[in-house]
Amino acid sequence: MGHTMENIDAYWRAANYLSVGQIYLLDNPLLTEPLRPEHIKPRLLGHWGTTPGLNFCFAHLNRIIRERDQDMIYIAGPGHGGPAAVAHSWLEGSYTERYPDVTQDAQGMRRLFRQFSFPGGIPSHVAPETPGSIHEGGELGYALAHAYGAAFDNPGLVVSCVIGDGEAETGPLAASWHSNKLLDRERDGVVLPILALNGYKIANPTILARIPEADLFKLLEGYGYRPHLVGPDHAEMAGTLDEVFDEIAAYRAGDDSRLPMIILRTPKGWTGPREVDGLPVEGTWRAHQVPLAKVRDNPAHLAMLEEWMRSYLPEELFDEGGGPIPAILGTVPEGARRMSANPHANGGELLAPLRLPDFRTHAVEVKSPAVQTSEPTRVLGTLLRDVIAANPRTFRLMGPDETASNRLSAVFETTDRAWNAERLPTDEHLAPGGRVMEVLSEHLCQGWLEGYLLTGRHGLFNCYEAFIHIIDSMFNQHAKWLESSQKIPWRRPVASLTYLLSSHVWRQDHNGFSHQDPGFLDVVVNKKASVVRVYLPPDANTLLSVADHCLRSRDYVNVIVAGKQPVLDLFTMDEAIAHCTRGLGILPWASTDDGVEPDVVLASAGDVPTLETLAAAAILREELPELKVRVINVVDLMRLQPSSEHPHGMPDNEFDTLFTTDRPIIFNFHGYPTLIHQLTYRRHGHANLHVRGYKEEGTTTTPFDMAMLNDIDRFHLVMDVIDRVPGLASKAAHLRQRMSDARLRARAHTRVHGEDAPEISGWTWPSTYSS
Amino acid sequence: MGHTMENIDAYWRAANYLSVGQIYLLDNPLLTEPLRPEHIKPRLLGHWGTTPGLNFCFAHLNRIIRERDQDMIYIAGPGHGGPAAVAHSWLEGSYTERYPDVTQDAQGMRRLFRQFSFPGGIPSHVAPETPGSIHEGGELGYALAHAYGAAFDNPGLVVSCVIGDGEAETGPLAASWHSNKLLDRERDGVVLPILALNGYKIANPTILARIPEADLFKLLEGYGYRPHLVGPDHAEMAGTLDEVFDEIAAYRAGDDSRLPMIILRTPKGWTGPREVDGLPVEGTWRAHQVPLAKVRDNPAHLAMLEEWMRSYLPEELFDEGGGPIPAILGTVPEGARRMSANPHANGGELLAPLRLPDFRTHAVEVKSPAVQTSEPTRVLGTLLRDVIAANPRTFRLMGPDETASNRLSAVFETTDRAWNAERLPTDEHLAPGGRVMEVLSEHLCQGWLEGYLLTGRHGLFNCYEAFIHIIDSMFNQHAKWLESSQKIPWRRPVASLTYLLSSHVWRQDHNGFSHQDPGFLDVVVNKKASVVRVYLPPDANTLLSVADHCLRSRDYVNVIVAGKQPVLDLFTMDEAIAHCTRGLGILPWASTDDGVEPDVVLASAGDVPTLETLAAAAILREELPELKVRVINVVDLMRLQPSSEHPHGMPDNEFDTLFTTDRPIIFNFHGYPTLIHQLTYRRHGHANLHVRGYKEEGTTTTPFDMAMLNDIDRFHLVMDVIDRVPGLASKAAHLRQRMSDARLRARAHTRVHGEDAPEISGWTWPSTYSS
Repeated sequence: MGHTMENIDAYWRAANYLSVGQIYLLDNPLLTEPLRPEHIKPRLLGHWGTTPGLNFCFAHLNRIIRERDQDMIYIAGPGHGGPAAVAHSWLEGSYTERYPDVTQDAQGMRRLFRQFSFPGGIPSHVAPETPGSIHEGGELGYALAHAYGAAFDNPGLVVSCVIGDGEAETGPLAASWHSNKLLDRERDGVVLPILALNGYKIANPTILARIPEADLFKLLEGYGYRPHLVGPDHAEMAGTLDEVFDEIAAYRAGDDSRLPMIILRTPKGWTGPREVDGLPVEGTWRAHQVPLAKVRDNPAHLAMLEEWMRSYLPEELFDEGGGPIPAILGTVPEGARRMSANPHANGGELLAPLRLPDFRTHAVEVKSPAVQTSEPTRVLGTLLRDVIAANPRTFRLMGPDETASNRLSAVFETTDRAWNAERLPTDEHLAPGGRVMEVLSEHLCQGWLEGYLLTGRHGLFNCYEAFIHIIDSMFNQHAKWLESSQKIPWRRPVASLTYLLSSHVWRQDHNGFSHQDPGFLDVVVNKKASVVRVYLPPDANTLLSVADHCLRSRDYVNVIVAGKQPVLDLFTMDEAIAHCTRGLGILPWASTDDGVEPDVVLASAGDVPTLETLAAAAILREELPELKVRVINVVDLMRLQPSSEHPHGMPDNEFDTLFTTDRPIIFNFHGYPTLIHQLTYRRHGHANLHVRGYKEEGTTTTPFDMAMLNDIDRFHLVMDVIDRVPGLASKAAHLRQRMSDARLRARAHTRVHGEDAPEISGWTWPSTYSS
Repeated sequence: MGHTMENIDAYWRAANYLSVGQIYLLDNPLLTEPLRPEHIKPRLLGHWGTTPGLNFCFAHLNRIIRERDQDMIYIAGPGHGGPAAVAHSWLEGSYTERYPDVTQDAQGMRRLFRQFSFPGGIPSHVAPETPGSIHEGGELGYALAHAYGAAFDNPGLVVSCVIGDGEAETGPLAASWHSNKLLDRERDGVVLPILALNGYKIANPTILARIPEADLFKLLEGYGYRPHLVGPDHAEMAGTLDEVFDEIAAYRAGDDSRLPMIILRTPKGWTGPREVDGLPVEGTWRAHQVPLAKVRDNPAHLAMLEEWMRSYLPEELFDEGGGPIPAILGTVPEGARRMSANPHANGGELLAPLRLPDFRTHAVEVKSPAVQTSEPTRVLGTLLRDVIAANPRTFRLMGPDETASNRLSAVFETTDRAWNAERLPTDEHLAPGGRVMEVLSEHLCQGWLEGYLLTGRHGLFNCYEAFIHIIDSMFNQHAKWLESSQKIPWRRPVASLTYLLSSHVWRQDHNGFSHQDPGFLDVVVNKKASVVRVYLPPDANTLLSVADHCLRSRDYVNVIVAGKQPVLDLFTMDEAIAHCTRGLGILPWASTDDGVEPDVVLASAGDVPTLETLAAAAILREELPELKVRVINVVDLMRLQPSSEHPHGMPDNEFDTLFTTDRPIIFNFHGYPTLIHQLTYRRHGHANLHVRGYKEEGTTTTPFDMAMLNDIDRFHLVMDVIDRVPGLASKAAHLRQRMSDARLRARAHTRVHGEDAPEISGWTWPSTYSS
């Protein structure tokens, strides 16, 4: 028993056999009879090339886990090698624990093979369905960032992370190596990168496999690691792993040397067919997916498949019932030490709720709405400071060097930025173990946070609004992970991924056009209603209420858009809670409809559009006192959708009561106007809905000029009302002209003076608006 | 005269002076009188920190250009240092050539200062408005990829590329260093990376500035470069540049050594205020934006600003009229050798139309619609092959290792993948100078192509549909560049950036859920109608026609979505041209309305949805022969928008004639259904429009099961028709039940057999659909 090289090899052969079986076989799993065409799947779908390398790593890491009682999880960067992770889980018994019908015997093996990449079965990639995984690997680039995210604040853990040499060419992966500069020896675990150089991606050699070995070593040493090269050999791998884990132990004990990593050179499709139809396969890109095609119809290929599978000597690996032999089972760790059953890889099992301070104690005092101003994110910073203080090991704040710029600096009263590289006397708030994670890479912020959340912790990602698009695709993949996980009973809910998007489109005073893009919301709403939530709190107290709600939530992606610049305080804390709970509502003090049917509805979502809407309402109140104006603010954007489409969706009758079905609605929106149409096109009053928003106009200019460039300004809104309320055009022609003149005057003022006119730039309540 | 160190220093001081002036001054540009508050801008917007370093590089590179008659352009990764590039252009005279009112004298200098970051003026960043630039640098990460894109196929050119140490932390930049593995000594120019280590990003030190210098050297050597370290010293920079350009000359002459790069260590905000209000500024992150705040109101800051500006000794730099002194002008290259006037940085000036083979000769012969099948991208591959052959130095095909997977392999009959690293005997189609650019990085593909196009060449980016989201933000920035450029008369049109999105959402047979995302179109349509075009050709001949059109176009982003799997051939070449020219149209052979008002409209966009729509129409023809069905296919998605919104938009009367205003429209869409609503919500018949599309359901399954999971299948479409055509529900209740049964049967078939039933899986015309 135990970890003789023979037993490790047996485990590896068994995993390889099970992998090939998953790709090819419908039946005859143990090859108890000669392979016949009807045993073969009609559609051969899967990726063999990376699989034997993944299995090799599993087999050898298991020895380390057992010998050192090492807490370890495994991230398969080449997640398309799904059969490997599934085979591993089956051999460890955890697959049967999660899916009792897939028993650890011949019948279960048949099911295991059949279900893979099969309609009604399981995906071809490592996926939420795969026990032991927090990483899909469908879209490449994020393995190492996920690994570091998992390692943070898990001091005993080693996160082994296989990185394919294809994935290593991606930008996010290339940046992830430097994550070690933010790793804390005391508080964090260790990441063991295993660069799997099998030489090819889909149809091409890889860069790292073809640069001189001296360059490769320099590169990885330059990234701050101690590389160990291993070839396709059991003894070499075992010896190296012993060295590597000794080095890790020394690091933990305080040794000053670098952390190790492994370069594993193996052939692609190792142990698979050498040559097929006269062309080399093993060791080439041809091994990437299915080395033998059309096996049902091609007797030669069928024979090769059987020869290939029998080369693993299945009769030596599985007993008569089809279960793994004891020698194999003896190499497998026990219980939660199994990488396929480690609770870190099903983070919801470990999740403890955040200790949340009472957000109401951070409230801004508001005696009267729309009189004083606050900087919402600065206020939120004080709440986040206290969240960090109360949860010193389970909450992190991510941001691409924008935490201070986004005015969350209060967090630095209680913590620092994580940093273990050189520090200089002029530096501020840098320390190992800091809770704020800042590098200039949205990819890393996102990847770390995903890894951190999926292993059962909490966090928030603050980002400039425009540049959150950098991680659109990562959001997509995380949302899909959550969508799938929600259908898997054993996947326990994890903390939501919450974005705070600040420094938004309307206040890019310093940076202009390149920094103006509110379109992330459009990406977000394409994902399933069961996972996405979007909030646009218009002031400090609503931001506090929304943030508290988001930090308590599970299995969602929450997007909060909130400015850092001073905006009017609109709600007392109690009002804010009520408003956010409703998600949208009438602002009675800004309205003039007095509970009767209004002539026009002014709606808004977002801080700057809300201010302009309130200013427009004030102008209308003063100039057209008989006009009945209803002012509505929307905090929870998903309320606009029909209740059939989103759990937050408002029933039609309520929507109709609020917005009317026949009065003009002027909706002033933070983002691209079409999103509001997309959410509301089924509403009865939609034909009366006129949306203002960002229309891709902007540059480095004043805040009010920016509003005017996109026609979301107070003056234009008044003009919109006059144009749309029946009968008003002639009656209010003079006012309309004055509004138009006011725009021209405002434009001229900024062009001459370089700033907004005082009555506008203060963003205060416009009791007078014209000179 | 000439390049004494004194003259270079004078140039540098002048550029620094002009930079500070741009950030601060409204008036008194030459400090001919003491600085007063009214000379100061009311809003101080800009980024000083990186600017002196950028100016330092400009000053020294100009000597190289003159002494070696070197063709060179300059990419400022820290593009937020806009004042530097503008100052440079003004000193070189090109600013006045482009903007004649900004003269090279005191009056012009006043204008230059005033307009910067000022309403109605110019952006704070390097931008399309800046002569000599192809790179905004607003969103960081792409400088080096742009530089390589510019260098490809420009054998005489050196692209100097300043990379900020903040930007160096991004993923795309970290990956870009490896671009040198695809650079061809014969055909391509040289990129000279200058890593500007000023130590800080916005509020933090940078990783590369704080790792041990030995690690930094290893890292850059590992990337394949020969690093040269330079400190903040004129002589050191000059000496190093001489070495570096000698090395470049040796490389060009065939020397086997690596290409050089420079590490430039300077203080951040170098030459700016040392200390402000008791806190260190020069050499710290506090120098990032505006070192002296509130200068109008703070007399001490005002005095410091004046002292700072006078420290450059402006009276020694500018003559009495305000122009640069001859010693400075003597350091400036001439004509097109000026980096601010080099035509490579205004690529439209160099753009020659592609030599385009007649795409009609690549047509698939179609005798009867919807009988035979073709693989559209495989057919397109033959056209691209001939495009490459006819344009051997001005066209490149980018793809993240997916060119073969996307079935464009015909291109390898005429060219190879660019590759200068090690090659093995089993490799295929690798060679220096290959026209196909493949790394597993969408960021690099996009960045290279942008650089290549903006310097006046042509190309196409083929990508898996789901993963094009990886470059959402890069698309955004490129679209914004085009939007701005279209308003700048001297920016000549460049070739459009054309995406071919294949391996799309409906045919992820191997990869499943993670590879299913058609949402890039939603990102694209948020950008201005003047730059975005979206095409969904349903068959091979329409794809050829669309591709030809896109390759001829200028200043657009074209998105083509087209499958690689066999689809029915629907159009002869002539019909395809006519159909694509109209952008959408009735398929008379599939319709049964015979030119009269139909009972129902079946519309589609995308290849798989179109096939299902045609199958549904065939079922209806057979089962409900009296029902008048009109079948419409949409190729050019922008035709759906009102003509007021997009130049391709269809006038309402034409739209109404086609789609009717009162009959049910069942629209089967390739992407998320809301996009069709977003485009059509203003149309008269919108209330009757029912859209099917991807609703985030999927896994590894069969193509028809995938269609059924999202209700875009033929059977469901027939049910939709029955449900929506008035009076049909009862009349066709039996058919509806049969359709529902057919779905269940199809589902059951795939779950048992693992493949679609033969009558469906062939994707052929369903003359019979039920057993």
